Amino acid sequence: MTSDAPAVATIVVIFAIIDERLQVLLVHRDADPDAGSWALPGGVWDGSRSLDDAAAAKLVEETGASDVYLEQLFTQSGLDHTQPSVAIAYFALVDASAVRLRAEPGDAWRPAWLPVGELPRLAFANNLVIEQAVERVRAKLDYTNIAYGLLPERFTLRELQSTYEAILGGESLDRRNFRKRMLGNAVIEPTDEVRREGAHRPARLYRFTTREPVFL
Amino acid sequence: MTSDAPAVATIVVIFAIIDERLQVLLVHRDADPDAGSWALPGGVWDGSRSLDDAAAAKLVEETGASDVYLEQLFTQSGLDHTQPSVAIAYFALVDASAVRLRAEPGDAWRPAWLPVGELPRLAFANNLVIEQAVERVRAKLDYTNIAYGLLPERFTLRELQSTYEAILGGESLDRRNFRKRMLGNAVIEPTDEVRREGAHRPARLYRFTTREPVFL
Repeated sequence: MTSDAPAVATIVVIFAIIDERLQVLLVHRDADPDAGSWALPGGVWDGSRSLDDAAAAKLVEETGASDVYLEQLFTQSGLDHTQPSVAIAYFALVDASAVRLRAEPGDAWRPAWLPVGELPRLAFANNLVIEQAVERVRAKLDYTNIAYGLLPERFTLRELQSTYEAILGGESLDRRNFRKRMLGNAVIEPTDEVRREGAHRPARLYRFTTREPVFL
Repeated sequence: MTSDAPAVATIVVIFAIIDERLQVLLVHRDADPDAGSWALPGGVWDGSRSLDDAAAAKLVEETGASDVYLEQLFTQSGLDHTQPSVAIAYFALVDASAVRLRAEPGDAWRPAWLPVGELPRLAFANNLVIEQAVERVRAKLDYTNIAYGLLPERFTLRELQSTYEAILGGESLDRRNFRKRMLGNAVIEPTDEVRREGAHRPARLYRFTTREPVFL
């Protein structure tokens, strides 16, 4: 290789539903350019392992989550204005209740979840990367079981609908149509369990018929 | 950058329908490793333009075609066993009748179309890249107008169906259902023109309602 080979990085858009909103995990950059500003987790790819493995390792490092939905999004040039570079972006859907964020010395440097609709200007045009990831997830909601990544293994229909609504940016879905569609697609199935919450009628728990990606 | 930065290349899977079969454009590699064997067109990316522009330029260089469907497929590491590298793969759908293949000195080095079902072992695990491109195109047939890239502006319903069948690997589609679906989706519309071929009844010419990618 010549010394002017482009820089290669992997970055990961990590989504979770927190407070009924779609949120993305961001870290503070610890080096220039844009030291101190928020950015997607990622790092230089050195070729010692596959791109998929590098993205999965970054995900585990940040969240502790390994059994999650991880997909390559796209590769973009020109995100870093200081040098020729390509960034291979992935996105992941994680169940927030299973996440343990990586600790950092000093509160100011801790990773944090931010709602996708309320992001500041991020380093490296990362806002654009997140927008494209959101678009991909929304598109896939319609024809795959992709939402399984955001939920625990067992969940109520209300939690499932709330997850869909969060991904769609707060849009309200008709309860009856939603349930009919999800059950009709054989995407989910009832379990024997129910959950009791306060004085409400116990809610049936459901699970995805498969946690492998399937087309509907 | 350090001198051990990975190599970055763009490669393009260029599809056309020729002799009613889905074929892919291949070139002979002119350098080691695997000099002389068939490979996808591509080249080192030097950072002087965007990845999209580099892929489009390669497509024009090989086929002369510019107004075509071009989409990023995925990025893969490890295709080249001689050094750490990433290859950003694109795929393109071109109308074979509009293509003028790049000329090379000596017949043995001319680019050529090969049917996707009958490929030899290609350099750099390119067979795998082509398989994934075929899979993407087939999946998109169902919910986009992606086939517009493979056809001239005006075409008969028979040509359209034949194009779909070629992409699906020779599967026969029911003529009546196919027409009903294409017209029902508002993907195509009739024009005022007909085409006369031999003693047959003149065939109506159709066009895509849009040649921009749309979801059905």
